[in-house]
Amino acid sequence: MKTLLLAVKDGSLPVEQAVEQISRLPYENLGFARLDHHRRLRQGFPEVIYCEGKTVEQVVTIFARLADHNPNVLATRATDEMARSVRDKVPDAEFEAGARAIYLWRDREIRGRGPIVVVSAGTADMSVAREAVITARVTGNEVDEILDVGVAGIHRLMDVLPRLSRAKVVIVVAGMEGALASVVGGLIAAPVIAVPTSVGYGVSVGGLSALLSMLTSCVAGILVVNIDNGFGAGFAASLINRP
Amino acid sequence: MKTLLLAVKDGSLPVEQAVEQISRLPYENLGFARLDHHRRLRQGFPEVIYCEGKTVEQVVTIFARLADHNPNVLATRATDEMARSVRDKVPDAEFEAGARAIYLWRDREIRGRGPIVVVSAGTADMSVAREAVITARVTGNEVDEILDVGVAGIHRLMDVLPRLSRAKVVIVVAGMEGALASVVGGLIAAPVIAVPTSVGYGVSVGGLSALLSMLTSCVAGILVVNIDNGFGAGFAASLINRP
Amino acid sequence: MKTLLLAVKDGSLPVEQAVEQISRLPYENLGFARLDHHRRLRQGFPEVIYCEGKTVEQVVTIFARLADHNPNVLATRATDEMARSVRDKVPDAEFEAGARAIYLWRDREIRGRGPIVVVSAGTADMSVAREAVITARVTGNEVDEILDVGVAGIHRLMDVLPRLSRAKVVIVVAGMEGALASVVGGLIAAPVIAVPTSVGYGVSVGGLSALLSMLTSCVAGILVVNIDNGFGAGFAASLINRP
Amino acid sequence: MKTLLLAVKDGSLPVEQAVEQISRLPYENLGFARLDHHRRLRQGFPEVIYCEGKTVEQVVTIFARLADHNPNVLATRATDEMARSVRDKVPDAEFEAGARAIYLWRDREIRGRGPIVVVSAGTADMSVAREAVITARVTGNEVDEILDVGVAGIHRLMDVLPRLSRAKVVIVVAGMEGALASVVGGLIAAPVIAVPTSVGYGVSVGGLSALLSMLTSCVAGILVVNIDNGFGAGFAASLINRP
Amino acid sequence: MKTLLLAVKDGSLPVEQAVEQISRLPYENLGFARLDHHRRLRQGFPEVIYCEGKTVEQVVTIFARLADHNPNVLATRATDEMARSVRDKVPDAEFEAGARAIYLWRDREIRGRGPIVVVSAGTADMSVAREAVITARVTGNEVDEILDVGVAGIHRLMDVLPRLSRAKVVIVVAGMEGALASVVGGLIAAPVIAVPTSVGYGVSVGGLSALLSMLTSCVAGILVVNIDNGFGAGFAASLINRP
Amino acid sequence: MKTLLLAVKDGSLPVEQAVEQISRLPYENLGFARLDHHRRLRQGFPEVIYCEGKTVEQVVTIFARLADHNPNVLATRATDEMARSVRDKVPDAEFEAGARAIYLWRDREIRGRGPIVVVSAGTADMSVAREAVITARVTGNEVDEILDVGVAGIHRLMDVLPRLSRAKVVIVVAGMEGALASVVGGLIAAPVIAVPTSVGYGVSVGGLSALLSMLTSCVAGILVVNIDNGFGAGFAASLINRP
Amino acid sequence: MKTLLLAVKDGSLPVEQAVEQISRLPYENLGFARLDHHRRLRQGFPEVIYCEGKTVEQVVTIFARLADHNPNVLATRATDEMARSVRDKVPDAEFEAGARAIYLWRDREIRGRGPIVVVSAGTADMSVAREAVITARVTGNEVDEILDVGVAGIHRLMDVLPRLSRAKVVIVVAGMEGALASVVGGLIAAPVIAVPTSVGYGVSVGGLSALLSMLTSCVAGILVVNIDNGFGAGFAASLINRP
Amino acid sequence: MKTLLLAVKDGSLPVEQAVEQISRLPYENLGFARLDHHRRLRQGFPEVIYCEGKTVEQVVTIFARLADHNPNVLATRATDEMARSVRDKVPDAEFEAGARAIYLWRDREIRGRGPIVVVSAGTADMSVAREAVITARVTGNEVDEILDVGVAGIHRLMDVLPRLSRAKVVIVVAGMEGALASVVGGLIAAPVIAVPTSVGYGVSVGGLSALLSMLTSCVAGILVVNIDNGFGAGFAASLINRP
Repeated sequence: MKTLLLAVKDGSLPVEQAVEQISRLPYENLGFARLDHHRRLRQGFPEVIYCEGKTVEQVVTIFARLADHNPNVLATRATDEMARSVRDKVPDAEFEAGARAIYLWRDREIRGRGPIVVVSAGTADMSVAREAVITARVTGNEVDEILDVGVAGIHRLMDVLPRLSRAKVVIVVAGMEGALASVVGGLIAAPVIAVPTSVGYGVSVGGLSALLSMLTSCVAGILVVNIDNGFGAGFAASLINRP
Repeated sequence: MKTLLLAVKDGSLPVEQAVEQISRLPYENLGFARLDHHRRLRQGFPEVIYCEGKTVEQVVTIFARLADHNPNVLATRATDEMARSVRDKVPDAEFEAGARAIYLWRDREIRGRGPIVVVSAGTADMSVAREAVITARVTGNEVDEILDVGVAGIHRLMDVLPRLSRAKVVIVVAGMEGALASVVGGLIAAPVIAVPTSVGYGVSVGGLSALLSMLTSCVAGILVVNIDNGFGAGFAASLINRP
Repeated sequence: MKTLLLAVKDGSLPVEQAVEQISRLPYENLGFARLDHHRRLRQGFPEVIYCEGKTVEQVVTIFARLADHNPNVLATRATDEMARSVRDKVPDAEFEAGARAIYLWRDREIRGRGPIVVVSAGTADMSVAREAVITARVTGNEVDEILDVGVAGIHRLMDVLPRLSRAKVVIVVAGMEGALASVVGGLIAAPVIAVPTSVGYGVSVGGLSALLSMLTSCVAGILVVNIDNGFGAGFAASLINRP
Repeated sequence: MKTLLLAVKDGSLPVEQAVEQISRLPYENLGFARLDHHRRLRQGFPEVIYCEGKTVEQVVTIFARLADHNPNVLATRATDEMARSVRDKVPDAEFEAGARAIYLWRDREIRGRGPIVVVSAGTADMSVAREAVITARVTGNEVDEILDVGVAGIHRLMDVLPRLSRAKVVIVVAGMEGALASVVGGLIAAPVIAVPTSVGYGVSVGGLSALLSMLTSCVAGILVVNIDNGFGAGFAASLINRP
Repeated sequence: MKTLLLAVKDGSLPVEQAVEQISRLPYENLGFARLDHHRRLRQGFPEVIYCEGKTVEQVVTIFARLADHNPNVLATRATDEMARSVRDKVPDAEFEAGARAIYLWRDREIRGRGPIVVVSAGTADMSVAREAVITARVTGNEVDEILDVGVAGIHRLMDVLPRLSRAKVVIVVAGMEGALASVVGGLIAAPVIAVPTSVGYGVSVGGLSALLSMLTSCVAGILVVNIDNGFGAGFAASLINRP
Repeated sequence: MKTLLLAVKDGSLPVEQAVEQISRLPYENLGFARLDHHRRLRQGFPEVIYCEGKTVEQVVTIFARLADHNPNVLATRATDEMARSVRDKVPDAEFEAGARAIYLWRDREIRGRGPIVVVSAGTADMSVAREAVITARVTGNEVDEILDVGVAGIHRLMDVLPRLSRAKVVIVVAGMEGALASVVGGLIAAPVIAVPTSVGYGVSVGGLSALLSMLTSCVAGILVVNIDNGFGAGFAASLINRP
Repeated sequence: MKTLLLAVKDGSLPVEQAVEQISRLPYENLGFARLDHHRRLRQGFPEVIYCEGKTVEQVVTIFARLADHNPNVLATRATDEMARSVRDKVPDAEFEAGARAIYLWRDREIRGRGPIVVVSAGTADMSVAREAVITARVTGNEVDEILDVGVAGIHRLMDVLPRLSRAKVVIVVAGMEGALASVVGGLIAAPVIAVPTSVGYGVSVGGLSALLSMLTSCVAGILVVNIDNGFGAGFAASLINRP
Repeated sequence: MKTLLLAVKDGSLPVEQAVEQISRLPYENLGFARLDHHRRLRQGFPEVIYCEGKTVEQVVTIFARLADHNPNVLATRATDEMARSVRDKVPDAEFEAGARAIYLWRDREIRGRGPIVVVSAGTADMSVAREAVITARVTGNEVDEILDVGVAGIHRLMDVLPRLSRAKVVIVVAGMEGALASVVGGLIAAPVIAVPTSVGYGVSVGGLSALLSMLTSCVAGILVVNIDNGFGAGFAASLINRP
C-alpha cells in the first residue's frame, strides 16, 4: 500500500486510478467467480478450488486460469468427469480418484522444516488421509504416511514411534471414537492435527463422535479441523512447517 | 368488514348471506387446495406456490388459476417437468432451472424505494441467491447481484462496497461459517437479511453452522431466514423496500 | 478515503501520516476495548454496549465516553449495580430493570417513516419486548406496544388488527411454540421480525422450539433474530424504518 | 384368569395344562412373528401390520392370517408390491398408494360417539392425513377431512369452524412450524391430536420444528404423536371416540 | 355472531358499536394481560394461569379476577409466595406445594364419563403426577392415582391392572426411559396420555430420553405431552372424558 | 407359580386368595413407594434406593425396611442429610460422601468368580469410580481399584497391565474423550464396562463426548452405561462375575 | 516380554533384534492394513473384519490371510459381492445375506459356561439379531434365539421366560422405544446387553430413541452397545460367557 | 529403551529389575494421582494441572511436587482458594484470577522462533485469551496480545495488521459467531488457532455457534480447540513455535 501511496505523492499515479487499483488489482472476475491471484503472495499458495457445487465448466476454467499463473494448483472434492475435463485442458494435471483430488505439481522443491507424518486409524479413513498427503506434498513438504494403526492393537503404534518422532507436525486421521489422536499426542512432542472422519455407523455416523472426542482430548495441544477435512489439515501442517 | 355490516344494516344484504360471505369470499376451493385470492390485496403479491410435495397437475392448476387473476406469479422448488407442464398451459411463464423457479413476470414496473443487493459467498450458493433475485424482481424491485465475495479474500468485498452502500436492503447468501453476513453488516447502514445455505460438509452439512453463525452475529441488525430460503429473503426484502 | 488521498497528492499530508490515519482514525483504544466512534456515521447510531462479561468499571467508562460524543446511548443486559454506577457518572441516563437496559435519550426526534409495533405473546415475554421497545425508541422511532395476545384466544389478536395494520415494521415476541409470528405475518403486509424467547419448560427450555417454529413459518417474509434478542429486533426495525 | 383358576380348582384342568395355557393361548407363532390374536379382545381391533423392515412374504402371511379371524385388517407403510401380493391372496383388500395403506374394511358399522375431523395444513401433508383418515374409518368411525387450511390465510380456517365444532376429536396434520395445531386448539373444545409431518426444508427437515412446536403449544390439551404417524393419531382418536 | 348481526339489522345496535363489540367483548384488558373470559364458554374451563415469568402481583390480580367469574380456578408452576398472596385475597383457594398448584375448587360435581387413572413410575415423578391429578379433579373428573409402579418389577403393575382397566383415560407419568407408557398401553383399551418427566441424570437429564421413548412407542395410541406437563395431560384427559 | 396352583388344586388355597396372592405377595406398599422384596430372590440383591427426587423421610423409611429383611443394602445419590438420618435409624450403615453412597455391608462374603478391576482416567472421575467400587463390593465381589491412568501418559497404563489382566471384568471410568476404554479394551481379554463421566468443559460438558466415544470404540466388546452411572457399572459387573 | 528379555540376557538374541521383535512380531503389514495375528492369543479370537470402507480385494486378502492362521474367521457388514469373492478363495466360508456376515466356522466346540439368549422385539430387527447370533456362535457359544416379543403384547414375553431364565447372558435387540430391554432386565438375573436398532421413523430414525431409552433404563445392570451393533453385543456376550 | 536392554545384556541389570523399570520409572504415584515426570522430557514442559474436580489439597500437593522438579509449572481452572494455598507452599507462584491460572515462571528464556499473537474479539472473551497468553509465556514464548477487534468494525482489525503479520502463530479467541477467525485467517500467512468461547446467549450459549463456525471456515488452515480452551491453544502454539 505504501508503494501505491508514494506513486500518488510523486504524481506518477492519478488519485482516481489509485482508488481503483486498491480495490481492483488483487483478483480477476470470471463472472461466476472472483479469482484471488494475490493469495499466493499472501499465503504462499494459490487459491485452492473446492469443487462441490461447481459445474465441470467452472472447475476447468478456474483450474486452467490458475495453472497459467502458478506452478502448483490443487482442486479438492472433484469428480472423475471434472478430472477428465481438466486434464484435456491442462495435460500435466494429475488425479487421484480415492482422494478426489486434481493437482498440478510442477514445482517439487521441499520447503518445509522437516517431515509431516500422516497417520490413519483404519483402511476406511484412507481417502481423507490421502487428501492430506497430496495437499502437504504440492505445498512443498516431505510427507511420510502410516496406515491402519488403530488403538485396538496398540503395539502396531509402538512400531512406528520412531517415524512419528521425526515429524515436525503429525496429522492423525481417524473415525469412530477417534482415540488415536489422544494416544499419538501423548507419545510425541510435535503438534498434532486431528482429522475426524465420517467413517462408522450408529452414533458415529457423520463423524460427530470422532470430532467431539478429538476436541475434548485430555492431551494438551491437539488441534482439530472439520470432519473429513484432509485438505485443511494438510494445508495447516504446511503453514506450520514453514521456516 | 364495516362495508359488509352497513349493507346488513340498510337491509341490502340478508343476515344469512352476510355470515356466508364473511367466511367464503377470500379464497377458492380447488378440492386439494384453497387458493387465497385475497393475498394480493393483503400483501401486494398473490400466494406463492411451494412445489415440494405437490403433484405436477396440482402445480399446473394452481399456477394457471393464479395467472388468470394476477400479472405476476411465482412457483418455487419446481422440477423441470413441472416447468414444462406449466409452460404448456401458460406460455409466457419462464423457468430458471438452477433456481428451481417458475415465474410469470408481465408487470415489470419498479415499485421499491431503491435497489436490493444480493451478495453470495461462493459459487455453490448461487442457486439460493438466484431464487432471492427472481423473487425480489417479480415483486417489483431493482436488484443488483454480486457473486463470490467470500471473506477468505476480504479485498474482493472492498471492491463492491460502493454497490453495497447504494442498497435499501442487502441479502447475504452464504454457507459454511456464514461470516460474510457479519462482515457486510459491519460495513453498511442498510438492514441485512442473511440466508444460510446447506453448502458444505462435516459439521456444516445441512447449513446449521451458517444458521447459528448468522443468528449470533455480533453485528446489530442482522435478520435471518431458514436455510436455503432464498425466496423468503427476497420476499421480505421486497416488503421492506416498499414506500 | 478519496479526501485523504487528495491531501497526499497535494503534499499537505505526508505518506507516513496517511498510512497511520487510515488505520487509526475511526476508533479510540481504551486499553480493554476499542471504541468505534465511526459507527454513528456508518449506521446512524453509536456502538451499543453489550454488558455481559464486562466489569462495572468497563461499562461505566465506555458509557461515559460515548455519552461525551453522542446524544443517545444504549447499554443492554445491564445489572442494577452497573446502572447505579453509570447514573452516578451520567445522571441523565435512565434504567429499566425489567428490560435490563441503561439508556441516554436526549435526542427524542422521530426519524422513522412510521410506527414500529411490538407485539408479545405472554406476560413472561415482556422483558424481551421492552428491550425491543427501548431500542426502537432511542434510535428515533414511534413505537406502539401490544402485550399478551397469544394464539390460544385468537380474538384478542383481531381486536388489535387496526394497530398492527398501521405499522411499517412489526416485531413479534413469543416463547413456547412461537405461533404468533405466523398468525400475525398472515394478517398484515408489513415485514415481521420474530423474536423467540426462552420462556417455557421441557422441550421449549432455552427457546429452541420458538426459534425453529419462526424459521420454518409457512408465512412468507418472517425474519428471525437470536433467542431473547429484543435489542437486535429493535435495531433492525429501526434500520428498516429509515426514510 | 379367574375362570382358569376355577377350572383348576374343580379339577377339570390339570395344573400343568393351566400353566401352559396361561402363557400359550393368546398368540400364534408364525416362526418369524408372533401374532397377537388376543389384541382384538383387548383393544377392539386386531394387531396392525407395520410393513417397514418386513419382506413381502411376511406381510402377505400375516395379513392373510389376520383376515381369517377378523372382519377389518390394516397394514401401514406398505409398498405397491406388498399391496399387489396381499390382494392376490385377499382379493377384497384395498390399497391407497398415497397413504401407503392396505386395508380390509368388511365391517363398516359406525361405533364412535361422533365425527372425527382430520385437518391438514398443506397439500404436502396429505399422505399422512390420509393414513389417519383410513385408520379412523376401518376402526369404526365417521370421518370428516379438511385439506389445506394453513395459518398463512387464517380466514380459510374460519370457514370450516362449524365442521371443526362438530368433532368429538380433531386430528391436525401439519409440517413446517405446525402452528395450525395451536390455532385450531384455541378455537374448539374437543381434544386435539397433533401430527407433525416431515414436510419442509432447512431446520424443518425431518419434522423436528413441527414436533417441538406442537409439544410446546400454549394451548392446553394438545396431544402429540410421532412425526408422520398418521396411523397413531387415527388409532388414538378411535379409542377416544368409543362410547 | 348471528345474534349480533340480527341486532344490527333491526337497528337496535349501531354499526360502530357492533364493530367494537365483536373485537372487545370476550376478554378483559388488565394492562399487563388480556383475560379471556370467553374461554369457559368455549372450552368448559376458564383460562389457566401459568405462573412462571409473572410477578406475584400479576398472579394475584388474575386469580382474583377469574375467581370473581368462575367457581373453579387453577394456577400452575406457582411459588409458595404466590400461594400465600393469592390466599390472602381468595381465602378458599388451596395450594399443594409439591405440585406447585394453587386452585379454587368450589364446584366439585363430577362431569366425566368415567374415572381418569394417573399412574407414575417412581417416587420422583410424584410432583408431575400430582399436577395432573389436581387438574383433572378441578375440571370435574373422578381420579384414581397409582404411584411407583416402574417396569423394573412388572408384577407391581399386574396388581393394579383391574384399576387400570376401569379407566376412560390413563395418564402415565414416567422419567428415565419411560417404558411404563408402552407397557401400560399394551395392557389396556383406553387411550393413554404419556407425560415424560425430567427425572434422571446423564442422557436422561431434562427428560429427552423419556420423551423420545414415548413418541416412538411400538404400542398404538399413545399420546404425548411436553416434558413435566402434568397440567396438559390432566386437561386433555378431562376433554376426552367429557360426555 | 406352580406351587400356588397346586395349593389351589388340592383345595388348601381358595381361588380368591390365590388371585390376590399372585399380585400382592412380592412387594410391600409403603404408600409413596412399592418395595420389591422379591428382588433379592430374582436378582440376588435387594432393590437399590435411588435417592434423587425422594425426601429424607422416604429414604430413611425404605432403607430401614430393606435393612430389616436383608444383610446388605445400598442407597445411591444420597445427600449428607439423608446419610445422617439413615444412620440414626440404622447405626451400622456407612456413608461415603464423595461417592454419595449409603450402604449396609453386613454380609462380606466374596461370591464372584474373580476380581473386578475399576480403572479411572483422572482425579475428577473418582466419585463415579467409588460408586462403582462400593456397589461391586456390597454385592459380594473382590474389587481392585486403579486411579489416574489417563492416555496422555500411556506408560502409566502399562505398569498396571498385570492387575488388569487378572480381572474377570474391568470397569473403565473416564470423562473428556473417554479414550481410556478403547486402550484398555485393546489390551485385555475380559469384558470391559465403560462409564462416561460428566467431567470436562466445552463440548464435553455433561459427558456426551465420552459417551459417544465409548459407544463407537473400534475395540470389540466394550459395553456402555449411562453417564456417571457408576452404580449401574458395578451392578452389571457383579452379575457378570457370578459363577 | 520376560521370555524375550531372558533371551537377550543369555546372549541368544542380539539387542537390535530384540528391539525389532518387540515392535514387529505381533502383526503383519499388508500395505493397506496391519493384521494383528496376536489378537487371538490376547482375546481368544482373531481380528474381526469390518468391511465398510474396504474394497472387495482388501476384504478377500485379509479374510484369506486370517483363514490361513485361524479355524474361525468373521467379517461383518459385507456385501454380496465381497461374499462371492471370499468364497472363491476360501470355499468353506459361509455367508448370511440378511446379517451381512461372512464367516468361517471350522471349530464348532462350545466353550461358554451356558447359553446366550438373543431376543428381538420385531421382525425388522432380525438382521441385527442375526449378526449377534452368528458372532456368538463362531466364538464358541450355544445360542438360543427368540424373535418378535415386543412389549405391545407382554404375554408373548411371559411364554419365553423359562428360556430367558436359562441364559448366562441375554442380548436384547430392539428399535423404536427399546422398552423390551427394561422389561426383560426386570425379569431375570443374568446380565443384559441391549442393542438399539435404527428401525423406525420420525424421532426414532437412526435409533437414537432406542439408544437413549436403553442407557436410561430404570433397571440395574443393562449394558448398551452402539446402534445396530449386533456384532459388538455378540462378542461381548462371548467374553462374559467364558469360564 | 535400547540403553536399558544393553544394560540387561551386559548383565549389569537383572531381568526382573529391567521389567520393573520399564513400567515404573517415568511417574510417581501420589495415591490419588500419578505424576508423569517424564512429560517434560517428552513434550518440553511438565504435566499441567487441570484443577476442576480436584480438592485444594490435591492441587497443592501436585503443584509443590512439580515445583520441586521443574522451573515452570502451570495450573489451570483454579479457584482463589487453591491459589492462596498453593502460594503458602510455593511462595513464588503467581495467580491471575481472571484467567483462573496459577503459574510458576522462574525460567523466562524465550525459546520460540517468533512472536505468538493472541487476538480476542470482545471484552468478554478476555479471560480465555489471558489463559492462552499465560500458557504461551510460561512455555517460553514472546506473546503479543490484541483485545477487542471484533468484525463489527473491521477497520479496528486493519490497524493491527502489521502486528498480526509478524506472528509465527496467531491465536484468535472469539465467542458468538466467531467470524474473526475467518477474517484474520484470510489476511495472514501464519497458522491460525481458533478458540471458540462460551460468551453469548440464545443459540450461542455454551459456545456451539462459534465452534461450528470456526470448524467450517472457508479459509484454509484454521485449527480449532475445544470451547474456552485457552490453555490448549497456548500450548499448541508453543509446540508449533519451537525451532
